[in-house]
Amino acid sequence: MFSETDFIHMQRALALAARGMYTTTPNPRVGCVLVKSGVVIGEGFTQPAGQDHAEVRALKDARARGHDPRGATAYVTLEPCSHFGRTPPCAHALIDAQVERVIAAMEDPNPQVSGRGLAMLRDAGIDVRCGLLSNEAHEINIGFVSRMTRGQPWVRMKIASSLDGRTALPTGESQWITGEAARADGHAWRARACAILTGIGTVREDDPQLTVRAVATTRQPQRVLIDSRLEVPLTARILEGAPPLIFCASIDKHNAAHAEALTARGAEILPLANAHGKVDLPAMLKLLGSRGINELHVEAGHKLNGSLLREDCVDELLVYVAPSLLGAESAGMFDLAAPTTLDARKRLAFHSAERIGDDLRVLARLAPAGANH
Amino acid sequence: MFSETDFIHMQRALALAARGMYTTTPNPRVGCVLVKSGVVIGEGFTQPAGQDHAEVRALKDARARGHDPRGATAYVTLEPCSHFGRTPPCAHALIDAQVERVIAAMEDPNPQVSGRGLAMLRDAGIDVRCGLLSNEAHEINIGFVSRMTRGQPWVRMKIASSLDGRTALPTGESQWITGEAARADGHAWRARACAILTGIGTVREDDPQLTVRAVATTRQPQRVLIDSRLEVPLTARILEGAPPLIFCASIDKHNAAHAEALTARGAEILPLANAHGKVDLPAMLKLLGSRGINELHVEAGHKLNGSLLREDCVDELLVYVAPSLLGAESAGMFDLAAPTTLDARKRLAFHSAERIGDDLRVLARLAPAGANH
Repeated sequence: MFSETDFIHMQRALALAARGMYTTTPNPRVGCVLVKSGVVIGEGFTQPAGQDHAEVRALKDARARGHDPRGATAYVTLEPCSHFGRTPPCAHALIDAQVERVIAAMEDPNPQVSGRGLAMLRDAGIDVRCGLLSNEAHEINIGFVSRMTRGQPWVRMKIASSLDGRTALPTGESQWITGEAARADGHAWRARACAILTGIGTVREDDPQLTVRAVATTRQPQRVLIDSRLEVPLTARILEGAPPLIFCASIDKHNAAHAEALTARGAEILPLANAHGKVDLPAMLKLLGSRGINELHVEAGHKLNGSLLREDCVDELLVYVAPSLLGAESAGMFDLAAPTTLDARKRLAFHSAERIGDDLRVLARLAPAGANH
Repeated sequence: MFSETDFIHMQRALALAARGMYTTTPNPRVGCVLVKSGVVIGEGFTQPAGQDHAEVRALKDARARGHDPRGATAYVTLEPCSHFGRTPPCAHALIDAQVERVIAAMEDPNPQVSGRGLAMLRDAGIDVRCGLLSNEAHEINIGFVSRMTRGQPWVRMKIASSLDGRTALPTGESQWITGEAARADGHAWRARACAILTGIGTVREDDPQLTVRAVATTRQPQRVLIDSRLEVPLTARILEGAPPLIFCASIDKHNAAHAEALTARGAEILPLANAHGKVDLPAMLKLLGSRGINELHVEAGHKLNGSLLREDCVDELLVYVAPSLLGAESAGMFDLAAPTTLDARKRLAFHSAERIGDDLRVLARLAPAGANH
């Protein structure tokens, strides 16, 4: 169905899509390659929201290079959009340009629009095929797919641990367990996330900025703090720079004045309580989804990590394993009760494992907990 | 200094050496390739102790194939031996065969004999070079090198754990955390070991046979049990088959009768106490070294694992990491106290990390604790 040449051009389109890794949010990362008579005549990838999508970019590139896209084949990593958003639909642009063939890696993941862009192209007489390198295309937009299909972000929990699964000494000391290369790599994962989440415990212990520093990016992810009783000090570094979003359980007479002071600092405060007077984590994910958060990057302590896992709010673990042992008394990765039997244990699937400097980076996905995963 | 051709032939010699992985103990695994006028005329690898070494095997192979080894180049993964052991020295055999060149991957690791074999060859007018693929040659005989240079085996501790570093539920349940492929792989590591060590705790909880089953081998490793108070029940499966070696702290009026019953079952009992009335682990390693144990494979529980680590009796960790989480209440890898500062933590170096079925296999080496490592 697909030729070796198709494969090569789609790989190039995926590489272009990856160039939007840090910038396209809330839009998906899409790449487009236009090929005519075996020659690549135009390339493009999605620009920051409100600007050109990949297809339009590739058409402009072809014309700027003096090529006419009529009769070309367009390789796109995602079904061209069929609706007017902040930009006109890309399917229109391809039809207007009179391309002859469109090869898409995957359909639009939104079940309510999926297939419409391809149908629109087919109705215009264009030869349309879909499904080439779809796994790779899915991976690059795993957060967008999650938001479109589940209404919530893909949640990636980052942990730095010793080989014996410990994250901090009994004294609390945890900086730095992993090496410099792993920390820089961690910043790349922060950079691709739409939002970075932490908890009040981590703010108290480490007072992190939670900004992207070790890699170059034009966009800083939204910072999100879970602080049930709204205790974040006004001096916390997370309050510096772009305003963070703070989830608390409720605003009452005990914390109203502090809430006002935080709001005056620019922070947005959202009360969202569950039945136990804590932040309702699943509801928080839905809310973040409604705000266009595709990938949520978690850097928290073992308590919040444990709560997120218990409440099935984690999709994958990004674990940097350091070549050291911290011993049985040191803090573990998460406060998580043991299952009663091995059969009842929380299961994962390893996605990748590789060396980053002297450390290992392991990406493991939680096995689906329910039918909607 | 070495040509591409030299490299290829030495790689072949290393592959031959690996074919002795399960059988050469206490001798090193050595491979030899004889090349004449660019043609491989003979190959060999070390046979079980008392039989032919690699060089003799390769010379016989060449002659059996109708070739005269005169003027050939011999590629050997270890310096040919210069002394009479259970077989005559291989250096003699090469000299008698009138080979022209000998290329060795590494010198004999025994500092008292190192270089003598090569000198003997040079004295006979043979062109001798050493050091091609020496790292690979060292790896394949890591246990033999350890015994020759330190007088004790290379100690490899095997652990099966969840991603959060837990090895058993609070109930003790631990079979099976890892999958079938990892368990089979574990048997291959057992098979290459000269001895397999466990503790009385594991005998009580799992009653293992500690034999090699999942891979084909003509040799079963010596089984070693650490049982300070000599409490192993006469019904334990470790007492079945070839007699195990049991280290206890002492034999006294409390356990003398049991010791006698165990001895009657064939077990060898060695009292070896430290100042705390436990088995003296470092002394045990020296004793095993004196008995020709090159690689010691440890499969024990977190208590003995912790003791071995604390007493710097571990060279590497072979950790099978399962894609699951067992929670903070579950048993960790070893009873090891936390360091007072991160700087004081036990450091490792990752040697390899790869997928084995659904699990990960991580090989990590302990950083040298003393100058003699």
